[in-house]
Amino acid sequence: MTNASICTIGDEILIGQIVDTNSSRISRALEEIGIKVTRMLSIGDDSGEIIGNLENELRHSGIVVTTGGLGPTKDDITKAALAKLSGSSTYIENPVQLEIIHSILQARGLDVLDINKAQALVPDTCEVIPNRLGTAPVMVFRFPEERFGHPATLYSLPGVPFEAIGALPNVIEDIKAHTPLTDIFHKCVMVAGLAESALSKLIEPWEDSLPDDIHLAYLPNQLTGVRLRLSIYGGDKEEEERRIDECFALLKPILGDMIYSYTDDTLQNAVGALFRGTGMTLSAAESCTGGMISSLITSVPGASEYYLGSVTSYAVAVKEKVLGVNPETVKEYGVVSSEVAAAMAEGVRRLTGSTYSVATTGLAGPGGDERNPVGTVWIGMSGPNGTATLKKVYKNDRKRNIERFTSAALDALRLFVLKDLNS
Amino acid sequence: MTNASICTIGDEILIGQIVDTNSSRISRALEEIGIKVTRMLSIGDDSGEIIGNLENELRHSGIVVTTGGLGPTKDDITKAALAKLSGSSTYIENPVQLEIIHSILQARGLDVLDINKAQALVPDTCEVIPNRLGTAPVMVFRFPEERFGHPATLYSLPGVPFEAIGALPNVIEDIKAHTPLTDIFHKCVMVAGLAESALSKLIEPWEDSLPDDIHLAYLPNQLTGVRLRLSIYGGDKEEEERRIDECFALLKPILGDMIYSYTDDTLQNAVGALFRGTGMTLSAAESCTGGMISSLITSVPGASEYYLGSVTSYAVAVKEKVLGVNPETVKEYGVVSSEVAAAMAEGVRRLTGSTYSVATTGLAGPGGDERNPVGTVWIGMSGPNGTATLKKVYKNDRKRNIERFTSAALDALRLFVLKDLNS
Repeated sequence: MTNASICTIGDEILIGQIVDTNSSRISRALEEIGIKVTRMLSIGDDSGEIIGNLENELRHSGIVVTTGGLGPTKDDITKAALAKLSGSSTYIENPVQLEIIHSILQARGLDVLDINKAQALVPDTCEVIPNRLGTAPVMVFRFPEERFGHPATLYSLPGVPFEAIGALPNVIEDIKAHTPLTDIFHKCVMVAGLAESALSKLIEPWEDSLPDDIHLAYLPNQLTGVRLRLSIYGGDKEEEERRIDECFALLKPILGDMIYSYTDDTLQNAVGALFRGTGMTLSAAESCTGGMISSLITSVPGASEYYLGSVTSYAVAVKEKVLGVNPETVKEYGVVSSEVAAAMAEGVRRLTGSTYSVATTGLAGPGGDERNPVGTVWIGMSGPNGTATLKKVYKNDRKRNIERFTSAALDALRLFVLKDLNS
Repeated sequence: MTNASICTIGDEILIGQIVDTNSSRISRALEEIGIKVTRMLSIGDDSGEIIGNLENELRHSGIVVTTGGLGPTKDDITKAALAKLSGSSTYIENPVQLEIIHSILQARGLDVLDINKAQALVPDTCEVIPNRLGTAPVMVFRFPEERFGHPATLYSLPGVPFEAIGALPNVIEDIKAHTPLTDIFHKCVMVAGLAESALSKLIEPWEDSLPDDIHLAYLPNQLTGVRLRLSIYGGDKEEEERRIDECFALLKPILGDMIYSYTDDTLQNAVGALFRGTGMTLSAAESCTGGMISSLITSVPGASEYYLGSVTSYAVAVKEKVLGVNPETVKEYGVVSSEVAAAMAEGVRRLTGSTYSVATTGLAGPGGDERNPVGTVWIGMSGPNGTATLKKVYKNDRKRNIERFTSAALDALRLFVLKDLNS
């Protein structure tokens, strides 16, 4: 099995100003093709440190992936260090990347400066994978066996997470084309509505019954629930995938509709799948979630087919005036109540004329009292067959509470619509 | 100056299941007392790897902080590896930690098993800092100069972030008591409205004029613009901070209102600062940004003081019916136009009665045509002195375009309100 090291370069990581999320993303992508990451390293923007540490990693691993230090400004010195490491003193211009630089900057209405153009220059010792999402290309340095005791390849990716992740598929393709790999098969199910520990308890007998060569991983996410992934190393693709499907078939009677997808998916996408092509429409009324439900729903390409819009009624007056919530209801039950959640859901449905709607009213924090402690949310769902509400209580900080509320509302909406479709 | 390495131990980090947030927190705490972290490393639960890598880090740095691998289960082997590294074969029981273990487990209604009690056993080569938040104590190993070429100390912390961060103050106290320290001073400014490269070009003469001992870093962020940070190692706090302030004072005439804060800040916070305590209120009308502007505004604690709410008018009918945009305006100018952005901003202001409003209408993608290519956004701002609009064009994928639109809208709103306040 080929080993890999990941090395993030940049003072901003070392001084703790930025949390490195690239390494885990890259590691998961490598793992999916059967490459094991044995070390992750973060170092600063210092030429000697970069060269010394990367030589060490290349001795240690057949594949080294770096991110960062490729920006146009003076403090970014990864490229010069890699030139030195690979024995190059000549830079050549990559015409594809130069073209991309021009089109990116022109689209932003910016002049193409010399420091921008210089980003298309790469050491003559590397191959280039153009980066369509940013100005710095991916550089690939291949070292012969005699240099580090084994053939070794270094991939230098940009540090901006969006660009690094965007470049990953091409990097993975290059690795697959140049590295002898053991096949690995993965399949996953997405589960909403249960914390990792409760889920683990519930499916323990199923987990214990899994064949020895099938590995289970729990991949929890604040917004999308828990991804359960089964993996097999080696074997025949069709046969192994059939065996994994058999295992998941046994999971369905245990989890039911808590399973919302059999691919790596999001709740907003699962909601979208219920509406797409049906002619049914959706709207939202938000209070404590502040726009995040709407923001996630519209993050799905093509959401305009079924999503009409939302009202964020942060002020009580907007709840009453725009959504038509009765002031007496607010007075009698309080803003954070089942009654107000229902009235908000019904109000935005009336306002937009949508088939379905979802609403939230709660307390993300700070504040709160005995009846409604911080972390309390009421979720309302309204549709052609009526209105329902649901209360959830979480115990996180403001940011995490808002995310939890949003995720719970999308899941509640999904189950609400699903119930109508199945009836 | 004393250098430090941070080493996180655990397979779950290497396979990308967990994003390591401990390292950045520990780094910031070390940096505040003038200790420079020069390397961060993540390795797996393997005894040989742990010993080899930690010996290497101890040769490299006077202080090594590890987290992880201290749990009660078999896969956690950091303690045994540290015993071996420090030449210990005898474990002694720490009575304070044993007491804590009993009280934590009893509070959770759990029996105290032998594997739990074993967590109070530590190698006789270490000192203990009790951990009141968890069952595994912090272990401190002090190595004499002859072992690694300099005096070196290793701190082993638990991996659970809540426990690691909770233990930090005591670790920092111990470091301060045992290490000669150099101070370090940082200050930053937040700049909006310019890409990193354009900013760099604009402030190049200023950058070149900085004193040699003052270091500049560019820290760009999709949503909050570019953070410029100046750092000085050593010297007198008051004097050095005054020198940094002098440098920033020379930057102000160059960047003007593009500087929106002198602390690590966000645009939504800068907007909030303009409204807080003034009695002025704010609303938003979103189309292509889908709720993200509202979501960011409400991410600021206390936003309810000035933020009334928003309408996400994804469907044209909602723009017309809820926001009162004239259907003729849409017909004549198209949905993505200055006229519709202005009408949306005015409409939501009328609807909510807010002092100011901001609106977006654009194309995040996919789709688009020659007149309005993907990445085009019109931003409208309305207030007591009138309405203004602004067009921006970006060239990213859907997700990034939405983020860019949102950031541009918050910045346009900020400058719009600022203009009124300064007039």
